[in-house]
Amino acid sequence: MTRRALPDAPLIAAAAGRRPSRTPVWFMRQAGRSLPEYRKVREGIPMLQSCFMPELLAEITLQPVRRHDVDAAILFSDIVVPLKAAGVEVEIVPGRGPVVAQPVRGRGDVDKLPVLGRDITEVAEGIRIILGELNETQALIGFVGAPFTLASYLVEGGPSKNHEKTKAMMHADPETWHALMAKLVPTITAFLRTQVDAGIDAMQLFDSWAGFLSERDYREHVLPYSTEILQGVAGEIPRIHFGVSTGELLGAMSEAGSEVMGVDWRVPLDAAAARFASPRVLQGNLDPAMLFAGRDVVRGEVSRIKAEAARAIEAGNATGHIFNLGHGVLPATDPGAITEAVAIIHEES
Amino acid sequence: MTRRALPDAPLIAAAAGRRPSRTPVWFMRQAGRSLPEYRKVREGIPMLQSCFMPELLAEITLQPVRRHDVDAAILFSDIVVPLKAAGVEVEIVPGRGPVVAQPVRGRGDVDKLPVLGRDITEVAEGIRIILGELNETQALIGFVGAPFTLASYLVEGGPSKNHEKTKAMMHADPETWHALMAKLVPTITAFLRTQVDAGIDAMQLFDSWAGFLSERDYREHVLPYSTEILQGVAGEIPRIHFGVSTGELLGAMSEAGSEVMGVDWRVPLDAAAARFASPRVLQGNLDPAMLFAGRDVVRGEVSRIKAEAARAIEAGNATGHIFNLGHGVLPATDPGAITEAVAIIHEES
Repeated sequence: MTRRALPDAPLIAAAAGRRPSRTPVWFMRQAGRSLPEYRKVREGIPMLQSCFMPELLAEITLQPVRRHDVDAAILFSDIVVPLKAAGVEVEIVPGRGPVVAQPVRGRGDVDKLPVLGRDITEVAEGIRIILGELNETQALIGFVGAPFTLASYLVEGGPSKNHEKTKAMMHADPETWHALMAKLVPTITAFLRTQVDAGIDAMQLFDSWAGFLSERDYREHVLPYSTEILQGVAGEIPRIHFGVSTGELLGAMSEAGSEVMGVDWRVPLDAAAARFASPRVLQGNLDPAMLFAGRDVVRGEVSRIKAEAARAIEAGNATGHIFNLGHGVLPATDPGAITEAVAIIHEES
Repeated sequence: MTRRALPDAPLIAAAAGRRPSRTPVWFMRQAGRSLPEYRKVREGIPMLQSCFMPELLAEITLQPVRRHDVDAAILFSDIVVPLKAAGVEVEIVPGRGPVVAQPVRGRGDVDKLPVLGRDITEVAEGIRIILGELNETQALIGFVGAPFTLASYLVEGGPSKNHEKTKAMMHADPETWHALMAKLVPTITAFLRTQVDAGIDAMQLFDSWAGFLSERDYREHVLPYSTEILQGVAGEIPRIHFGVSTGELLGAMSEAGSEVMGVDWRVPLDAAAARFASPRVLQGNLDPAMLFAGRDVVRGEVSRIKAEAARAIEAGNATGHIFNLGHGVLPATDPGAITEAVAIIHEES
């Protein structure tokens, strides 16, 4: 396929360090439970099943673009989709999250783990539908889960508050840990390759749990593998890298090589940019809780965040700004508050 | 009463910036679910009820001191104990946490909130029993929950993943927020006063959820109230101040005035100390997950942490070190691994 050029898409311009026609904005988890139209189309369909239904995943991906006038769609998917496609027994349990039937606890489990060696055709087909609906100012961001977060689900057997089994494996059995991470890279890369070949305009690597690691652990046990995944599409599409609670890790994470660094709401954007290994485009970082505080509060927060991004650019530590939340949209968020926030972000450029 | 002098207690010496006879160590949540003797004595007794039973709370407080040879007992209590004592309808629901019958959502709710105006005699009696059992090298640390964390339970109505109602109140209705915080101060102070008058040797202010705030929000909406509570016992006993995920807040939190600053495992102690407003005693910061990784891993981590503390002291940013975890003991921790870690920490002084 020929990738769309999108010279006028604000997100693509900003990601390339060019001046966008307006401040680009999208919100993590913009597709999903905050929208009544999402709850309606997902009714009765298990989460993971929906990620393999091309028409449905396209519809869910497009819903927030239609409703909120955001500058990008984020592919509706889940971090465990490539594992499921590879043949791992995993389900997403409502109210709990991904649960793995056979947790990975030793080298034998790693050796038995299947590797994804093919395109996920349902996802590719969904992307083709989405691209047919987006206009040339709207980018489609591919969704990729980072190997550490995926490894944590496999080792813990499900969502974990403290990741103790994962950290214990890292430290007590580093060979098995590294074997696991090395084995996840081709599976994740195949999922990313499916998306790139189907025509996504940019991608975000989600490392949801990275903020539970010290910088030492991150550098030794995670960074090489995230780097390898990002390197796999270098020069093809703009790459965004994000994890929540990663204030201490921003320098290390920026070394993985993405053009854009997502920032948690805890760290002001100018302080965040000063931690990068070299200047990057900033993405962030409105606290999602502020969408519960009314229009005036949002207006104040948006102008503060824009001013912090401008200071980072002025100081030479950042090369642009894509507006986003500092974490995902909370399920109870009023969709009207999201639409209003997007309008405020656009008008104040 | 006359407070114990404890010239030879390692924790008290370290907190005062003197050289202790050995590296003092205690572990947050050392009393509790990790111990079979705890599960046995708590059987059938609701959590909050146990905090008001002098013999039982004393027994639970003393169990880890007997078993692990730690240098301090931490009073077995809960952050909502002063609310309960003041007459607020609150229960601790197993597997969930504190649940408040009437959440605080507006100014009227704040005005109706009762204030604790008396000693909690059951807690005072428990402390007298504990002090009768500890020797002169073992300190008793009082337990006090910080007003922000308490306010979050009141506003959310229970434990919250994102604290959106709390943050919305802070920003959309700051007058009500400040009225709530101002009203919690005397209740918390009364609980602390009960403990100080009963003879505790030190105290820790636990701000469990502070790490969910940006530094801006912390300074404007939280710091003045935590400062007031700590000021209330200035010069009487050493004060420790801790919250998890507070890497971005260490400077602001240190301004509240405690002699000792607890540090989350995410931030190396030397980096943490460099963020303090002025030199303090460091407390921390072994990742509790490391207690699942075996003796050799713990030994390596303990020596790294001690070296980082030594560097902070050498650099003039810290005046001592109390060993602890960087968060509480995880419930599934093997008690033998805790005992072993304490021995390693002591031997390597």
